[in-house]
Amino acid sequence: MNKTQLIHQIKSKKSFLCIGLDVDLEKIPSHLLATDDPIFEFNKAIIDATHDVAIAYKPNTAFYEAYGLKGWQALEKTIRYLNEKHPEIFTIADAKRGDIGNTSTRYAKAFFEEMQFDAITVAPYMGRDSIEPFLKFQDKFTILLALTSNAGADDFQMLKTGHHQPIFERVLKKALTYINNENLMFVVGATQSDSLKKVREIVPHHFLLIPGVGAQGGSLEDVCKNGMTEEIGLLVNSSREIIYAGNDVNFAQKARLKALDVTLKMREIMEH
Amino acid sequence: MNKTQLIHQIKSKKSFLCIGLDVDLEKIPSHLLATDDPIFEFNKAIIDATHDVAIAYKPNTAFYEAYGLKGWQALEKTIRYLNEKHPEIFTIADAKRGDIGNTSTRYAKAFFEEMQFDAITVAPYMGRDSIEPFLKFQDKFTILLALTSNAGADDFQMLKTGHHQPIFERVLKKALTYINNENLMFVVGATQSDSLKKVREIVPHHFLLIPGVGAQGGSLEDVCKNGMTEEIGLLVNSSREIIYAGNDVNFAQKARLKALDVTLKMREIMEH
Repeated sequence: MNKTQLIHQIKSKKSFLCIGLDVDLEKIPSHLLATDDPIFEFNKAIIDATHDVAIAYKPNTAFYEAYGLKGWQALEKTIRYLNEKHPEIFTIADAKRGDIGNTSTRYAKAFFEEMQFDAITVAPYMGRDSIEPFLKFQDKFTILLALTSNAGADDFQMLKTGHHQPIFERVLKKALTYINNENLMFVVGATQSDSLKKVREIVPHHFLLIPGVGAQGGSLEDVCKNGMTEEIGLLVNSSREIIYAGNDVNFAQKARLKALDVTLKMREIMEH
Repeated sequence: MNKTQLIHQIKSKKSFLCIGLDVDLEKIPSHLLATDDPIFEFNKAIIDATHDVAIAYKPNTAFYEAYGLKGWQALEKTIRYLNEKHPEIFTIADAKRGDIGNTSTRYAKAFFEEMQFDAITVAPYMGRDSIEPFLKFQDKFTILLALTSNAGADDFQMLKTGHHQPIFERVLKKALTYINNENLMFVVGATQSDSLKKVREIVPHHFLLIPGVGAQGGSLEDVCKNGMTEEIGLLVNSSREIIYAGNDVNFAQKARLKALDVTLKMREIMEH
């Protein structure tokens, strides 16, 4: 998918909601546990109930890897289902990968070719040659961690380097020198909305993936005030609040209601 | 495995060689491609031929993920084979994971419980709450990226923060404030042997995983001069030079010869 198609989807659905598919077998409705593939059945039901209001889905690979082969299989089935049934949806592998050049190429092949995700999250610590292999893929997006939503973000991301610039600013600036940097997006936690203005000074046009609205305490209004562009430029993620809104046979409808609730707020903001 | 057992293995084998199992179907001998599981058959042959001189094996997950479900299956078979046939061997999942707390716990479960690796490599960018979930597992090791062997290491790891300390030093120092920090090891590239002295000032007793000897240009002698401790404290990794030493039916024997060659040098250094 290219950026024009993504923006078109956002403007026609009047939503910039990304739903995180972080499936935990201890939290999904018990009636699904009797099926052959509870993880996939859960995802399928959530996708079927929310695809008309969601722009993107973001499975976090940790939740699948924790179930071993079965989990990996469910991840593959989920991305295949999304690509076949809902090709307009933007798909993100929240994998936070990154390694030396030839190895990053392997990760890129795994997620862009083998599974055909539109995007992958990547950790910046290893620098240029760990990131550029992902950027070489056309119409695929590399979502670089810049300023994350967790408390540990203070440990390194906020450390001051020369000219009092925190490391996350150096990550943003350096990333703009990488090849095909138009294929970049950046992760900026909703809990960091004060820093969003600074982020937007450095990357005025790139899309930002924003986790941390809701359970982690970030505010949608603040995020939009400081981060929204003319092309919207935001994918705001919600995971638990939506996918676990219900826990009975009507869980998918309850997830839909919660997603509708969030996207109504998004629509209001977009129309003002 | 605990640290005492690891040191015992090193001292009795007189080796601190880690072999990287980075399997590329385009590089393995063609006769293996006719088998049901070429990746596993390759690993099994390499392990059978080298386990008496190697201390550790380190599959890099990227190489397995690139082959999808089959790759993940081969990774699971490889770790099961190692644990059943060679329980004395130290096993490292070179996965470079890291995410917010509950998600890092998932990764830890995937690699420490579901697959029973002894250790996993972790990227530090997200800070304390992305790393401590791994450290909670007893007799399991978290190998934190400090100073990597690639050119991109200069982008962020070498950036100067307050008191002219590069970020990798801040990573080492901060990590020593984390819970159960005795379960840490650190990745320091062999190409960074000048910085090894500084690393040893900060972490005099922790084990270091050293990639980059050989193909990437690092010198074993320099690494040992600047990084070795009384308990050795080093795991020096070699991947391509060993596993692809041959490409015919005798590939495993050729890998063995190359491994012997490296470990003879290690033995000489240990005995002086």
